[in-house]
Amino acid sequence: MSLVMDERVGHDGRRPSPFSWRIRYALARKGVSVEFRLVRFADVETIRALSGQHMVPILCGGDRVIHDSWNIACYLEDRFPNRPSLFGGEAGRGLTRLVNNWAAETFGPVVRRLISADFVLCLAPEDREYCRRSREAAFGCTLEEYCADRPRWLAKFGVVTAPLEATLTEQPYFGGATATYADYVLFSMFQYARLGCSDDFVAEGTALRRWRDELARAFDGLGNRFPEHSASLA
Amino acid sequence: MSLVMDERVGHDGRRPSPFSWRIRYALARKGVSVEFRLVRFADVETIRALSGQHMVPILCGGDRVIHDSWNIACYLEDRFPNRPSLFGGEAGRGLTRLVNNWAAETFGPVVRRLISADFVLCLAPEDREYCRRSREAAFGCTLEEYCADRPRWLAKFGVVTAPLEATLTEQPYFGGATATYADYVLFSMFQYARLGCSDDFVAEGTALRRWRDELARAFDGLGNRFPEHSASLA
Repeated sequence: MSLVMDERVGHDGRRPSPFSWRIRYALARKGVSVEFRLVRFADVETIRALSGQHMVPILCGGDRVIHDSWNIACYLEDRFPNRPSLFGGEAGRGLTRLVNNWAAETFGPVVRRLISADFVLCLAPEDREYCRRSREAAFGCTLEEYCADRPRWLAKFGVVTAPLEATLTEQPYFGGATATYADYVLFSMFQYARLGCSDDFVAEGTALRRWRDELARAFDGLGNRFPEHSASLA
Repeated sequence: MSLVMDERVGHDGRRPSPFSWRIRYALARKGVSVEFRLVRFADVETIRALSGQHMVPILCGGDRVIHDSWNIACYLEDRFPNRPSLFGGEAGRGLTRLVNNWAAETFGPVVRRLISADFVLCLAPEDREYCRRSREAAFGCTLEEYCADRPRWLAKFGVVTAPLEATLTEQPYFGGATATYADYVLFSMFQYARLGCSDDFVAEGTALRRWRDELARAFDGLGNRFPEHSASLA
């Protein structure tokens, strides 16, 4: 039974969605191939027709339609138990859920403060107006206002990532000697920042930069396969 | 070979130190008993003579003297591999280190903003001046100034613990179905707050309150064995 994954695509084949990245890495670790079906960022109706909600990725396997990246990761772990593990056992799965929630509730908002004004530019031109309008409604201000105080959000980025940086000075990956799904969740947020913004604000020489760049090169350079933010936007 | 653990003691037998709590729970999970040797909070010289540094707990086993609670937890896991696991495997150990660093770098500072002015009162009267002086030097202001804007720090507490609350609405413990060392690390910070401050600011009805109170009752009520902050301070 083949798997199909719906994934959002940006301008000229860009892939800035963090939720797709974490599942792409989970699939690579499991050695499972899927057929990708691309949807544009503004194409909310296609997504809603598929799964009754508007979040992507969606994984379709046989008669099952799974949405929410956490549910997809759990599905892959349980359906392919003899492939390399995403969680490293039940305690690892529990703690990975905490990391997943931390990425959504603590880290995500800081990253959005740093990239949202740039992010619309990596979308297809015809999607930008929808993206701007829906996010400005959610933020209650223009994207430029939302991102205006960059020194403040860069400082906040440093504070929020301090426990990540400390951990990666003590071990190669968050999962220990090997990257696991928690690494992919966090990496996906750094991909979101790197591919969704023209300014690489993860400083060279840091443990986080070493870890991010290593993961980008993993699985035959999976993380470097699609255009960067500025490649043809300048 | 018997183990001896040095632990800080406060007024009338109080035990507010978060680092001792996480190791007490680790020992209980492993079913390992130790002999406790009590040191007062201000008795820095005794501690330094034992281990060349001033942090407690210290675990002494044979000719080994281990300090830093993380190192002690790893020692217990590796020395008693056939007892219930503290980490649930190598990925769990890696992620627990991240939780340990998050507790130190993100959560700890917020808790200290909420409890530091009260905390000195749960120490032996003869230790309070030392504690106040050393912390005020570290904070660069009086303890009362450090804790002055309580509404701000209560709001910050809510923001910082949001991923914890979300996770515990989805599963019983951070380790999943069973509490593991990551739970003990986080619980120890809530014990520090509960036993080091007269105001219980973990709201009833929250998943965190349910989890905290359950863990306090675990191991025959281990977390409730010592006096609370206000028991005889009023």
